[in-house]
Amino acid sequence: MPTRPPLADTPYVRVDTGVLEANIATTATRVAAQGLALRPHAKTHKCADIARRQIASGAVGLTVATIGEAQAFAAAGFDDLFIAYPLWLTASKAERLRSVAHDASLRVAVDSVAGAIAMAQALGDARESVEVLVEVDSGQHRTGTAPADAGIVAAQAVAHGLRVVGVFTFPGHGYSPAGRETAAHQEARAISDAADALASVGVDPIVRSGGSTPTVEFAHPDVLTEVRPGVYPFNDAQQVALGRAGLDDVSLSVAATVIRREPGRAVLDCGSKILGSEKPDWVPGFGLLPDLPDARIVALSEHHATVVSEGRLPDAGSVVRVVPNHVCITVNLVDDLVAVTDAGEVGRWPLLARGANS
Amino acid sequence: MPTRPPLADTPYVRVDTGVLEANIATTATRVAAQGLALRPHAKTHKCADIARRQIASGAVGLTVATIGEAQAFAAAGFDDLFIAYPLWLTASKAERLRSVAHDASLRVAVDSVAGAIAMAQALGDARESVEVLVEVDSGQHRTGTAPADAGIVAAQAVAHGLRVVGVFTFPGHGYSPAGRETAAHQEARAISDAADALASVGVDPIVRSGGSTPTVEFAHPDVLTEVRPGVYPFNDAQQVALGRAGLDDVSLSVAATVIRREPGRAVLDCGSKILGSEKPDWVPGFGLLPDLPDARIVALSEHHATVVSEGRLPDAGSVVRVVPNHVCITVNLVDDLVAVTDAGEVGRWPLLARGANS
Repeated sequence: MPTRPPLADTPYVRVDTGVLEANIATTATRVAAQGLALRPHAKTHKCADIARRQIASGAVGLTVATIGEAQAFAAAGFDDLFIAYPLWLTASKAERLRSVAHDASLRVAVDSVAGAIAMAQALGDARESVEVLVEVDSGQHRTGTAPADAGIVAAQAVAHGLRVVGVFTFPGHGYSPAGRETAAHQEARAISDAADALASVGVDPIVRSGGSTPTVEFAHPDVLTEVRPGVYPFNDAQQVALGRAGLDDVSLSVAATVIRREPGRAVLDCGSKILGSEKPDWVPGFGLLPDLPDARIVALSEHHATVVSEGRLPDAGSVVRVVPNHVCITVNLVDDLVAVTDAGEVGRWPLLARGANS
Repeated sequence: MPTRPPLADTPYVRVDTGVLEANIATTATRVAAQGLALRPHAKTHKCADIARRQIASGAVGLTVATIGEAQAFAAAGFDDLFIAYPLWLTASKAERLRSVAHDASLRVAVDSVAGAIAMAQALGDARESVEVLVEVDSGQHRTGTAPADAGIVAAQAVAHGLRVVGVFTFPGHGYSPAGRETAAHQEARAISDAADALASVGVDPIVRSGGSTPTVEFAHPDVLTEVRPGVYPFNDAQQVALGRAGLDDVSLSVAATVIRREPGRAVLDCGSKILGSEKPDWVPGFGLLPDLPDARIVALSEHHATVVSEGRLPDAGSVVRVVPNHVCITVNLVDDLVAVTDAGEVGRWPLLARGANS
């Protein structure tokens, strides 16, 4: 039960750079062996120091979720970006998008005829400055058109002057312990059907993009050209529960101080304002405790995590690590990451796109 | 079903200043009528523009949750602060605390003998520059010593040179639809017992502090001297579900764009990265939709809210308001609030303590 000296005032987010770099290399190697391009989702880390490592290991560019994230990464010199989100463009958003397209090769998304027309009109004479992918629903039932309707959306987008270059999906229903491989099959089927639908209206589906951290190992390289996992540099308690990663593969944790200890129970100074409060039924608590394998976080307030254990708990004042359930949420709650090796702190990495919601 | 022109790119957080000011005035009046001091919790709003309105309406000072929040509000000129959290002080945290105590009248908290000794040692010759309250558990079972043990903690704190001036509790178990009044009774009992325990060791319990937005109307003025509600300037879906507020009493909402519409279903461009993902069993969805009373948010991703309705849903491109379940989380996810009246935007209020986790 190690208790570590804090590098910063707790609670803070620490990243073990050795584990991080191993995760980045492993996924890069596997995806390359599948013959797929890797375009990591940067909404997870929002961090140029990590994006640079991904590009250096062979990633073709970055995926982002918002125009704000695209602006931040373009300003940091990343010049190949895909906003994997069916934006509804207003004049204001179109102006921001044009500025990104000026600095980077930019792909955007549509998932409806109405959205495609709104995009073409808002972009005006800049509508050829972006590439467009049609989003299709592969089973998550969130956004995305039905695969069979992708041709209609593509044809209308083209008729309104947009440059459609392919299709994409997010198999988010793969976030279930028994559902990863099935979701990857459904992804392949949806992308294949959507590509056929584009071809049937004369649009070449050059880009066929899928993927997520839980499903990427099952991606179908006969159908897809590209995958977009996000969480893999860090991993988190969800990925451990899904069997996607072991606890030793988790590079990010929240360092927290034990502020109170009673028999069988302790309270840490980290809560939902740094861990986030997501807790799917299939994860065992509000975070994992790698330093306290017998313990479990049973309750979370904004600044408190309540830990119970039948084993020994560390003294008040000790610092322990907590692995968040969903790392994308945790990263968005701090301004920087404390990069560490076994030798201690090696840097502070700013989160250049934290809070870039729009 | 009004659709409103966006004041900023969606999603953003808007505050109706008329409702906000009415909420601040109503609670100030009621608490004054109870003969209690009002020390609002500023972790909810993290905003000087709102704190100034609270002080102007009679609040005696502010409550905060972290040293970082205290630093931010002290720097903004607020000179009477209570950090209602049992800090475990390191040398680094003690140095930050001393700087706050230099600029403001400062109260801090202990809830154990060990924590009191650590605090006294870390503060050193500055230990008399702060006032100390002993936290007691009134039924939430988070932090706080048992009321009967408050005397032991107080006596040891005094023996180590700290200035103990009273007791406090947070009746967080009052966040349950049938539990508000009971929690307030338990709060009074715990504070009364703890005050007796302090008196029995010769410490005068001058300050007896309690309260939360759901319980404040049931606070016992015969026992308490002060209450610390936080959410009441805004209210949120939790307060509506608890019966503490009506939908017309909610001043804060997230403005979001409909990015996709199908029969019976729509998707908004706001998700857990602006609404937060808390959803107690007793709230009906992942947020309320005041513009769409027949609709419900049934799923939330980081940037998507899935809405279902048997009624009519607005066209894609429309902007609607979403009331978050827990407003403290939402405020912490953005950098400013868009202040509005019926006439439109009247200002942007920076969140000076956003992300001040430590």
